[in-house]
Amino acid sequence: MDDPSAVRVTLLTDFGTSDGYVAAMKGVIAAVAPAALLDDASHVLPRGDVRAAMWALRRYWRLYPEGAVHLVVVDPGVGTDRRALAIRADGRLLVVPDNGVATLVLLEAGRWEAVEVTPFEPLHGGRSTTFHGRDLFAPAAARLAAGATIEELGPRVHDPVQLDVPVPEKGADGAVVGEIVRVDRFGNLVSNLPGERVRRHREDREDRAAYPPGWVEIAGRNVQTGRTYASVEPGSLVAVVNSDDLVEVAVRDGSAAERLGVGIGAPVRLPAAPVDPG
Amino acid sequence: MDDPSAVRVTLLTDFGTSDGYVAAMKGVIAAVAPAALLDDASHVLPRGDVRAAMWALRRYWRLYPEGAVHLVVVDPGVGTDRRALAIRADGRLLVVPDNGVATLVLLEAGRWEAVEVTPFEPLHGGRSTTFHGRDLFAPAAARLAAGATIEELGPRVHDPVQLDVPVPEKGADGAVVGEIVRVDRFGNLVSNLPGERVRRHREDREDRAAYPPGWVEIAGRNVQTGRTYASVEPGSLVAVVNSDDLVEVAVRDGSAAERLGVGIGAPVRLPAAPVDPG
Amino acid sequence: MDDPSAVRVTLLTDFGTSDGYVAAMKGVIAAVAPAALLDDASHVLPRGDVRAAMWALRRYWRLYPEGAVHLVVVDPGVGTDRRALAIRADGRLLVVPDNGVATLVLLEAGRWEAVEVTPFEPLHGGRSTTFHGRDLFAPAAARLAAGATIEELGPRVHDPVQLDVPVPEKGADGAVVGEIVRVDRFGNLVSNLPGERVRRHREDREDRAAYPPGWVEIAGRNVQTGRTYASVEPGSLVAVVNSDDLVEVAVRDGSAAERLGVGIGAPVRLPAAPVDPG
Repeated sequence: MDDPSAVRVTLLTDFGTSDGYVAAMKGVIAAVAPAALLDDASHVLPRGDVRAAMWALRRYWRLYPEGAVHLVVVDPGVGTDRRALAIRADGRLLVVPDNGVATLVLLEAGRWEAVEVTPFEPLHGGRSTTFHGRDLFAPAAARLAAGATIEELGPRVHDPVQLDVPVPEKGADGAVVGEIVRVDRFGNLVSNLPGERVRRHREDREDRAAYPPGWVEIAGRNVQTGRTYASVEPGSLVAVVNSDDLVEVAVRDGSAAERLGVGIGAPVRLPAAPVDPG
Repeated sequence: MDDPSAVRVTLLTDFGTSDGYVAAMKGVIAAVAPAALLDDASHVLPRGDVRAAMWALRRYWRLYPEGAVHLVVVDPGVGTDRRALAIRADGRLLVVPDNGVATLVLLEAGRWEAVEVTPFEPLHGGRSTTFHGRDLFAPAAARLAAGATIEELGPRVHDPVQLDVPVPEKGADGAVVGEIVRVDRFGNLVSNLPGERVRRHREDREDRAAYPPGWVEIAGRNVQTGRTYASVEPGSLVAVVNSDDLVEVAVRDGSAAERLGVGIGAPVRLPAAPVDPG
Repeated sequence: MDDPSAVRVTLLTDFGTSDGYVAAMKGVIAAVAPAALLDDASHVLPRGDVRAAMWALRRYWRLYPEGAVHLVVVDPGVGTDRRALAIRADGRLLVVPDNGVATLVLLEAGRWEAVEVTPFEPLHGGRSTTFHGRDLFAPAAARLAAGATIEELGPRVHDPVQLDVPVPEKGADGAVVGEIVRVDRFGNLVSNLPGERVRRHREDREDRAAYPPGWVEIAGRNVQTGRTYASVEPGSLVAVVNSDDLVEVAVRDGSAAERLGVGIGAPVRLPAAPVDPG
């Protein structure tokens, strides 16, 4: 790499920071790749919540430039014989436990290869059976940051664990039925309905110009679609196409999860032909 | 810039980190300015609390060297037509929503200029109407980090939104009356009374040498002034001149907000002539 | 230093981030050492908990390469005449309040020297009596990051404050009695019993090959030892040798602190001769 100062490693864990576990991983990376820039993604993911990590990772993995290393350690399987993977996906590099956390990366990448990371002899002597973040994942990320290829880390694998990601279905009446897949910290309900579903409906209509009103059905309510949260009054429900191009149900300046009393798995229905509810 | 590795971008948001929104902004910056050093200021500001962001920003914006880029995204107005601003203030660069979050910077800067940021075509295709952090603010900060001037980002503006910042007033009896403007996480009550008010009082006195005792009045109590928290016993109230040169009411090893049962807006009165309370 | 971009400064505080205090320290460092890489260790340590900081610091200080600067500001003594120390320990540099936070570093280091930091004239004028992080500790760390030796920061001291660290004792019956010294955020109970104690017991046994079962006694319970958390069923208690080579009592996918209702100081007993509990 021409400019080694530009090698960037992101870190995503559920460790919290106050016990020093995250800093231990950073120290391991710094020892092997002294010029690596370490960017914290998050260390406060819900403990062991692989799906939360999967959705968070989806938000940034490809926005980073090629060559970036994304390290994820959310790993309920520590101490089991769960594999550690190094993945190259569209030029970005990932080091992850083989528990499905990279499912959406693999689905979205134009091209990917994966290897199983062969354990190293740890620098500090004595391998830990309980802290794979420091002794297995961080050293692998560090070697990638220092210029290694994933192929140098271990043998090729073709069967990474992939989680079921719910896909919207078309009902007999032409409606599209999806479900809530994430609740963010603002209480916004993110569905798996792609934004194009809403746009396509609109394009069938003659008055499509200014994102005309339509609605989605959730928790027995019809929620009006809008271009932005600010399309409605503060405190009102609105369904928008969010920044991940997914349909999201929100309350302006409030929590849709609290308002509607629903969460992950709740069905969201996009009627066959949006009609002005007025 | 001679040493591009020294370009530093600070990030201040209310996003939390666990949804991956912050990492998405970092990725955008890394793609445009690969050598930029990213320093987290905070991502756990109270949601939409522009004043909290304003006070936090005041604590660090000018301590960073010239050329640093301060990115702030605390923005209840996302989705509205609220402008995005790029500001140059005493050689530091800021990218902020035009909601008054930079009020104290503009008040303190010897010289400032501002422009309205013209939206870019986002790198990843398809502009979001809900995530201006990724699609508007981060790209602007990234271009500044890569060497652009604020003038390259959009047309000059002269009327940034500025919040009312309460100013202490002089009472008829010679007392100075201010108010609490911040409560920090330790429960310390920060007033808008400048430290010099306390020092000036002291300078009128013959026994001023060793920061002689005086007091401030708050919540019906006279609170003794002291040079440091440690001027009083653990658990006792004390008024100090804090690190921002403001009068602050604290409980040593405790919370003054809890002890006194007051918060932002509570009046604080500095009597005309401090008299030894002994 | 050949490559100044590789100078790394870690930060460990109890400040939280939302008030901007941490960013102020970062700005001070950036002004003095523009190319320093700033790695957050943690800013959410329990307020004033010097022992928590001491254990966290132990986890990473020596994993960083030589030349790294570890800045710790967990300091119930701000405003008192507590000294500020700069320490060189096995090639790593530390800047800490003299309150014992570096006790475990000094115990573990093969060689260390310490100086008392002489206060600087702060860059921004007017020294604060309440924010030593910005005005005393960060400037010292910055000067080290910029290449100063600890000797340039002040006079040598030989008597840093050191905390009592409980040491396991051998009972009359041959048992080894230690105590819980840390509870991490997962509720794992970390004792001061070194891992070798468990391994030595095992080596006395003929069936030692596969980490044969033994137990430790805590809270009136016998807790089976295992090689990893995953040695037992989810929800079950297990005692492992953790990543710091200490005996740790855990509940797989749960909290041992909650299950057993004990915390720091609770006695943990390793019987003289582990016997298969089966």
